[in-house]
Amino acid sequence: MSPTSSSLLFGSHSVANGVVERDFTVGGVPGVLWSPAGYEAHEPAPLVLMAHGGGNDKKHPAMSGRAGLLVRDCGFHVAVLDAPGHGDRPRTEHDEREVAELFRARAAGEPEGPVVVRYNAHLADQAVPEYRALLDALQELPEIGPGGPVGWFGINMGTAIGIPFVAEEPRITAAVFGQHWPQLLAGPAARITVPVEFDMQWDDEHITREEALALFDAFGSAEKSLHANSGLHKQLPRFEAESAVRFLARHLTKG
Amino acid sequence: MSPTSSSLLFGSHSVANGVVERDFTVGGVPGVLWSPAGYEAHEPAPLVLMAHGGGNDKKHPAMSGRAGLLVRDCGFHVAVLDAPGHGDRPRTEHDEREVAELFRARAAGEPEGPVVVRYNAHLADQAVPEYRALLDALQELPEIGPGGPVGWFGINMGTAIGIPFVAEEPRITAAVFGQHWPQLLAGPAARITVPVEFDMQWDDEHITREEALALFDAFGSAEKSLHANSGLHKQLPRFEAESAVRFLARHLTKG
Repeated sequence: MSPTSSSLLFGSHSVANGVVERDFTVGGVPGVLWSPAGYEAHEPAPLVLMAHGGGNDKKHPAMSGRAGLLVRDCGFHVAVLDAPGHGDRPRTEHDEREVAELFRARAAGEPEGPVVVRYNAHLADQAVPEYRALLDALQELPEIGPGGPVGWFGINMGTAIGIPFVAEEPRITAAVFGQHWPQLLAGPAARITVPVEFDMQWDDEHITREEALALFDAFGSAEKSLHANSGLHKQLPRFEAESAVRFLARHLTKG
Repeated sequence: MSPTSSSLLFGSHSVANGVVERDFTVGGVPGVLWSPAGYEAHEPAPLVLMAHGGGNDKKHPAMSGRAGLLVRDCGFHVAVLDAPGHGDRPRTEHDEREVAELFRARAAGEPEGPVVVRYNAHLADQAVPEYRALLDALQELPEIGPGGPVGWFGINMGTAIGIPFVAEEPRITAAVFGQHWPQLLAGPAARITVPVEFDMQWDDEHITREEALALFDAFGSAEKSLHANSGLHKQLPRFEAESAVRFLARHLTKG
């Protein structure tokens, strides 16, 4: 079965703090859909697709935390897939080799950019059609529906997947990216014209200022905002999640 | 009378939409103080000092609009002075000469940076002690009091006055700056260590990217955030005022 013709197969389901969490698979890929409690009684609501960072998974606290803000504060639906080789998905020999190479480079004090850029691009080749199939399937749900506003929110590896995905996906209304290298992403970024909010760390030990600024500069969007915060790669402030949620709310809700 | 020993002399007074507006002079300098209606019945509240942009005045809509957010959303007091040669203050021959030179440079299509940098620094030499005297006087009011949190919010000329003021003023808790040149300001900026939010325009036709980034880089603050938006010098998005208000609220109110 082609991934573009898959439906969502729902698994376990829970409700906590006003948020419905539904596990699913689509074309065999595991994901999670967070929705506002009581969504069945409401009009279709905007959707935000998220992608997690390298080494994490669909339910990492960064994902569930951002989803909680989007669902509770904005009434949106939020979906994430496990990236290839991550979460509940098997690692291939190629995954194992690249992860070992990343750890070796780190331990040797070598730059990790070359490995991350190459490996994330490889994962994105697989993940982009998976996200397209996910969006097709989600728009068949009555609580989302076709033609509604759809946002993207992915930092780090979520940007390596998101930039090629959004560049080719006319259904995306606005996107939050950040913290990646321009070498393979500046090209597709130039084809993105929807509003973009982009995060970088001013003192990132892996991505130089020039690289981060070059990727921000590459976006073809007439409306784009760069948020650069002092601190190292992993010190992206929590308030940037709140800022991203306000940005998405501004662009996905009418009036 | 030395400016540091002046008290506020209140003039006219009005109330609208939950905001009390009081005109005053301090050491002969005209200013305006906005406060939450009913402030007399409440504990002392945080204060934000603002400074207006070149060619504007203390009650320019950018000032009253930002003050409205700070007073209504946060319960803060907000004060602005007319800068020397601006608003209700007389222009000297030197002011007239510099303004004429700025208009001449603009009409000739020459860079306006050299004139603005020089003239704003001249105005800041006078405005910095005026703001210090203002802060002394405001802290004598029971609704503000001594020792409470004080923020700074000034873009454009408000940054040319604000950076030397905050660099020498230990009573400032957090500051919003933006849209100026580093030539004369990077030095004092390096002495500022409080949290800073800094706005630049990515396509500014007057201030190059390298100049704006150099000024942001100069701040000595461990916590600083750069917001760069697509657009020309005068197209700073309105949502940056809301962002600045959230930044000030985060740093001027206790957890």
